[in-house]
Amino acid sequence: MVKIFVHPLNEYDVLVTTPGPASQHTVRRHNCALVLDAVAATPGVSRAGVAARTGLTKATVSTLVDRLVTASLVREEGRQHRSGPGRRGTSLSLSPDGPCGLGVEIGVDYLATCLMGLTGEVRDEHVRRIDNRDTPASRVLSRVAAELRGALQRAEREGLTVGGVGVAVPGLVEAPSGRVLVAPNLGWENIDLAAGLRTGVLDLPGELVVGNEANLAAVAELDAMRRGEETAPASFVHVSGEIGIGAGIVLDGALFDGANGFGGELGHFPVRPRGPRCSCGAVGCLERLAGQDAILSSAGADDVDDLVSRLDAGERTAVAAVRSAGRLLGSALSAVVNLLDIPAIVLGGTYARLYPWLADPLSAELSCRVMGSRWRPVEVRRSALGADAAVRGAAASALRAVLTDPDTYIASRTARSGSGIGATSG
Amino acid sequence: MVKIFVHPLNEYDVLVTTPGPASQHTVRRHNCALVLDAVAATPGVSRAGVAARTGLTKATVSTLVDRLVTASLVREEGRQHRSGPGRRGTSLSLSPDGPCGLGVEIGVDYLATCLMGLTGEVRDEHVRRIDNRDTPASRVLSRVAAELRGALQRAEREGLTVGGVGVAVPGLVEAPSGRVLVAPNLGWENIDLAAGLRTGVLDLPGELVVGNEANLAAVAELDAMRRGEETAPASFVHVSGEIGIGAGIVLDGALFDGANGFGGELGHFPVRPRGPRCSCGAVGCLERLAGQDAILSSAGADDVDDLVSRLDAGERTAVAAVRSAGRLLGSALSAVVNLLDIPAIVLGGTYARLYPWLADPLSAELSCRVMGSRWRPVEVRRSALGADAAVRGAAASALRAVLTDPDTYIASRTARSGSGIGATSG
Repeated sequence: MVKIFVHPLNEYDVLVTTPGPASQHTVRRHNCALVLDAVAATPGVSRAGVAARTGLTKATVSTLVDRLVTASLVREEGRQHRSGPGRRGTSLSLSPDGPCGLGVEIGVDYLATCLMGLTGEVRDEHVRRIDNRDTPASRVLSRVAAELRGALQRAEREGLTVGGVGVAVPGLVEAPSGRVLVAPNLGWENIDLAAGLRTGVLDLPGELVVGNEANLAAVAELDAMRRGEETAPASFVHVSGEIGIGAGIVLDGALFDGANGFGGELGHFPVRPRGPRCSCGAVGCLERLAGQDAILSSAGADDVDDLVSRLDAGERTAVAAVRSAGRLLGSALSAVVNLLDIPAIVLGGTYARLYPWLADPLSAELSCRVMGSRWRPVEVRRSALGADAAVRGAAASALRAVLTDPDTYIASRTARSGSGIGATSG
Repeated sequence: MVKIFVHPLNEYDVLVTTPGPASQHTVRRHNCALVLDAVAATPGVSRAGVAARTGLTKATVSTLVDRLVTASLVREEGRQHRSGPGRRGTSLSLSPDGPCGLGVEIGVDYLATCLMGLTGEVRDEHVRRIDNRDTPASRVLSRVAAELRGALQRAEREGLTVGGVGVAVPGLVEAPSGRVLVAPNLGWENIDLAAGLRTGVLDLPGELVVGNEANLAAVAELDAMRRGEETAPASFVHVSGEIGIGAGIVLDGALFDGANGFGGELGHFPVRPRGPRCSCGAVGCLERLAGQDAILSSAGADDVDDLVSRLDAGERTAVAAVRSAGRLLGSALSAVVNLLDIPAIVLGGTYARLYPWLADPLSAELSCRVMGSRWRPVEVRRSALGADAAVRGAAASALRAVLTDPDTYIASRTARSGSGIGATSG
């Protein structure tokens, strides 16, 4: 589900660069990640297969697999299968009983949490409708902390181990620190989200990862596509339509988010030179004219459920409001496709629900404005995850921390067990 | 100058997959490219250094270096230098006396040719002002063929060998065939450029490579930055401002041109919902409002030289016309930076000449509209090559064909010598 890139190391490699007592541990840590990556990439693989894939000896692989099985990161399937001429081995895969990632999404008008297992199955999902605008950031952080505590309690009740926490925010995130530089639709500037949550939730398990919601949503969509179909496009733009509009760019199977991780900001695409003022300070931004609030207002609808009822009933004002948003979105996306020559667009968030009314006017704009569309038509598809994508991406980002460094996760669990805190978090 | 990525092969590697008499040649061909790449990447390297870098034996490296020196691809410098403790070796670098790439650019209002040596030095450059609009494609191809013949004759007079030909066109190019799918500003659709030129110039030397002018310009700019300075940005957008507007996106030191090579089409960015109709069929495209013709027309200038005189004289209409284009261009580029989080913009083509008047309004728009600009300001720089970038990129693309497969180049030269055509083309 989560792609990790690691290279084989032997003791010698490390001893050359970092001599001393730490080396032995560094080697094990690296090789442990390598073995787990091999299992994640080829579910059902045998120990011999892992050895062949990683270049490690079978003895080393066996020791590390045992360690990963004991920690419930890897599952060993009882039934034997033929792994090559004359040889048999048990098949290994990521364990559905292993740790969960806890994701939380700070939406403009909701808070969502999700507990997701290593193999991508959702164990718990919770959405609280609440308007986070015009609210001091400290207040919103208290709400988020309460949601996290609630999810951790539910995890404990279900006997689930939480391996780490991921947070999705609709703003620019400074990568290593987890500081939110700006989130215009929340009215946030320079908020130390990581520190705030660590204060609000004592004993947060594992790593705390903060990311941009649109980028996390795109990664979740990519994971879902990979699990669900063989013919998923390797490159696409995932558009998260909420009150704000964000995008996540996937190039050749990996998220592209630019030099500072600020990439994918589609919401402030200029569509009207003299349009209304946006929360970002500029005028005529796409999200002010084609975002969820703009559509609801033009359609005279109270919320998205009401809008969809009106659309289902064929109410002309509602249909016209969505079609107009589709044309504006299509115009902006035509510029994106002309620039990046990307073969597919995935409509996510609220746009996934509006897809039946949005897709045609959007596609018409692409056909008209994309230079290469006559030879290579752009595919417009509906997100499989819809509004759930970002919170699932947040949960997956927490799991990625475990998957890229399983040894540290295992060591921290052992320490917790030793000090009497127990393996299950809460 | 040109970056090549090749991996070491030994005879065994190839014999496994392609048994038979061809293998020996395939191995040599691959290793020859590998050695040349090592010399290109580390000018001044010794034979021992090449062996260490490539993993080939010193004996193999020596044989291949001798072959490359004989073909004037590599220069061996007489003076000895210390390459390691107790060892001495001659220093190897790409030969300035080696083959030239012949580049030709088909501009909307000019045809340019350039002969460029392996180390990037320009041996001959020629620009013919001629309007190629409203002219049958076959007529334009005849003009291009005449320019190519002229350049080949000049090369012969100067004793230069031409290793291949690169063509830059302002349109979408189908990558392997060299067919131009569409070039709106030339009025071209589905033109088999490669076939047309091979018919128009008998005995065209080496490979014929066709590419998009804006993408080739960006690559030339990248090469020039690498030669000229240590602190060149690894990622940037190069904007080619001519009658049309194109862009080339460089990410982490390599051109990014999308799934089909159609990327970088910035000219048809929608800037006015009810703007004038563009040659592409849509309305309100950036190049119709901020391209060279639009600026000249607003400024009341006859051509770019006239415009620059008026700007130098501080003529208000001229300054206002350029500033207005700068704001529109800045608005479009803000969307590009918000999307890609790219740290630098390079203004090329005519925009390089207009830089002193264009940069400020453009930068002001970026500061206002780019979400992350407060934390990471976007650098706006002037192209070092200006209007010459695309034709130089075309010449470099022809050289790349030689550099990635030197053995085939050497074999074709030997064949030519044998049949009495001679090593110099013409």
